[in-house]
Amino acid sequence: MQHHFNDLDEKHMRRALELAWQGRFSTSPNPRVGCVIAHGEQIVGQGFHLKAGEPHAEVHAIRQAGAWAKGATAYVTLEPCAHYGRTPPCAEGLIQAGVKRVVAAMRDPNPLVAGKGLNMLENVGIETAVGLLEHEARSLNRGFLSRIERNRPFVKMKTAASLDGKIALSNGKSQWITNDLSRHDVQILRAESCAILTGIGTVLADNPRLNVRALPTLRQPTRIVLDSSLKTPESSHIIQDQNPTFLVTLSDDVAKFAAYPHVKIIRAQADNGRIDLADLLKTLADNGIGELMIEAGSTVNSAVLAADLVDEIVHYQSPKILGAGAQSLFRLPENEWALQNEALWQTVSVQTLGDDVKWVLQKKHAFQAA
Amino acid sequence: MQHHFNDLDEKHMRRALELAWQGRFSTSPNPRVGCVIAHGEQIVGQGFHLKAGEPHAEVHAIRQAGAWAKGATAYVTLEPCAHYGRTPPCAEGLIQAGVKRVVAAMRDPNPLVAGKGLNMLENVGIETAVGLLEHEARSLNRGFLSRIERNRPFVKMKTAASLDGKIALSNGKSQWITNDLSRHDVQILRAESCAILTGIGTVLADNPRLNVRALPTLRQPTRIVLDSSLKTPESSHIIQDQNPTFLVTLSDDVAKFAAYPHVKIIRAQADNGRIDLADLLKTLADNGIGELMIEAGSTVNSAVLAADLVDEIVHYQSPKILGAGAQSLFRLPENEWALQNEALWQTVSVQTLGDDVKWVLQKKHAFQAA
Repeated sequence: MQHHFNDLDEKHMRRALELAWQGRFSTSPNPRVGCVIAHGEQIVGQGFHLKAGEPHAEVHAIRQAGAWAKGATAYVTLEPCAHYGRTPPCAEGLIQAGVKRVVAAMRDPNPLVAGKGLNMLENVGIETAVGLLEHEARSLNRGFLSRIERNRPFVKMKTAASLDGKIALSNGKSQWITNDLSRHDVQILRAESCAILTGIGTVLADNPRLNVRALPTLRQPTRIVLDSSLKTPESSHIIQDQNPTFLVTLSDDVAKFAAYPHVKIIRAQADNGRIDLADLLKTLADNGIGELMIEAGSTVNSAVLAADLVDEIVHYQSPKILGAGAQSLFRLPENEWALQNEALWQTVSVQTLGDDVKWVLQKKHAFQAA
Repeated sequence: MQHHFNDLDEKHMRRALELAWQGRFSTSPNPRVGCVIAHGEQIVGQGFHLKAGEPHAEVHAIRQAGAWAKGATAYVTLEPCAHYGRTPPCAEGLIQAGVKRVVAAMRDPNPLVAGKGLNMLENVGIETAVGLLEHEARSLNRGFLSRIERNRPFVKMKTAASLDGKIALSNGKSQWITNDLSRHDVQILRAESCAILTGIGTVLADNPRLNVRALPTLRQPTRIVLDSSLKTPESSHIIQDQNPTFLVTLSDDVAKFAAYPHVKIIRAQADNGRIDLADLLKTLADNGIGELMIEAGSTVNSAVLAADLVDEIVHYQSPKILGAGAQSLFRLPENEWALQNEALWQTVSVQTLGDDVKWVLQKKHAFQAA
């Protein structure tokens, strides 16, 4: 069915999308959702979902609208839910509030909802329309949608290099290739992610926290370490602090960190003696990880790229020149095919951060464009 | 003396700068100059300098204005000339035309002019003012100004690399790392340059024409080859075609290409057995080269960077990944200093060309900012 939307519909839906975006650091594993209730130009209620277990966007909007909801149009960035979860179904709430029409940016692919929310509304005579700014709505929830639709996270890889494509000196030193604006931006990328994946090499070399420090957040991303032989030291930050940590291993010593309740050992499938990355992504999706950030060294980055599991590269590049002895960005085999063919990656955006450049690339025909 | 300019002055000077820019492919070795003659809002004459030996910008503007020049204001991007060169002095032309006021963006640093043009005007009672949009006017003529003020060209280096900082496969193949939009843009860079410098390695490997093909131009840039032992083959394009070519050598066989009048042998100073690049730049300035483009391989690029002779890098980067075996951008020694200090280069602009990125960097405190 083709729906027709007017400029006012679009304006309110854009506002609902903006509202939804306020939850980008905190709704996981739930989707980011915004809601606007309006009579024509006049908005009478609005809300966004902040955190799993807390009220959905529609609830906040309905509460604010009160009696004004009667006869109004509700704009939601995702189909209202129809199931009794941690909160009662939002479709029921909208019916009780007396709205006349519900516009949703997209259907909820979650099998618990998937059309049932819209059906509940239609069954009582509420007019529904779906598909307004659907592309934007999908982009907003690419992690959630990837987890539900593909049973794997949306994978974004952060890389940082000098003008000459180097990521560290030969002695491993990399502080600081990029400037403080770039490093702050990486903190935002982390905060938006459900989890951050790195390799045991990085843990042993840098003992990173991989947490969000530059901005207050309601939850910290899960740290995931590819650690085939469980070499993560007990003294490392990711074991000693209280934020969630997954150690992905081929070792059978799965009880090793039993004393640390925030540490979970994931016994991975092996693929030629290494961790099977494609299978791991399924496991991570089953664990509620929707948006996965890879923040690792050359070895892990190259392995994930070689397995064709990266949806987006966020590349920070500084004008510094580190010279020939320094370490290169990737350790991939030489690729004559790439030279002879169109680039597999498309440029989504490029911007300056001081003198650094932030370059966002996505795989052509990637998940998000679906 | 502090001059005061109003919005209308600025508007006309911007137009004069735009006019001057029309000569960017052809005025060399002369500067790019534009002129607007106006009564208030009303422009009565305008012009730009097209080619050395042909009329200056002021002449075109005066011709168009005719009797309307009387009592008008003339806006010129560079102080009007005061000397009899290939054309009579423009200051005299403005006096005879009867303008009341002359606004110049900047003084002409050329010792043949250097204030004399403005003095001629002032001596007959014409009001003069200098310094409006001077920064823009300097940027327009950075090649000319560098040649006059520093006795060396403004040096811009063009580089092209993959996402992972590679410039060719290990077998030397580099067609095509960047896309056709980037390659077209390089043609414009060439057309704007007085000369294009490369190394003998590139001549032997690729037999390039290093000419402008994608757009019609009134003159082709001079090709300059660093060719210590005069190994350039007689059969190469740069010898066989008719565009000017300089072979820079340490060889004494300076009569080698005497049969080719467009080929000039420059006997360079040696510096530890190699061509002294700083000294070469002086020689090139003496030969009228103002804007020099370096379009070379890793060896020459690295040598010019190491000698700290690059004013601007124009870096094209594609989203392709060529892998670890491929050749890296520069062959410079590892640079720990760069890691520990602020970048020496500043980002002037960054833009997308399809999925490629064009990134322009200039040395901080570089010549242009003077």
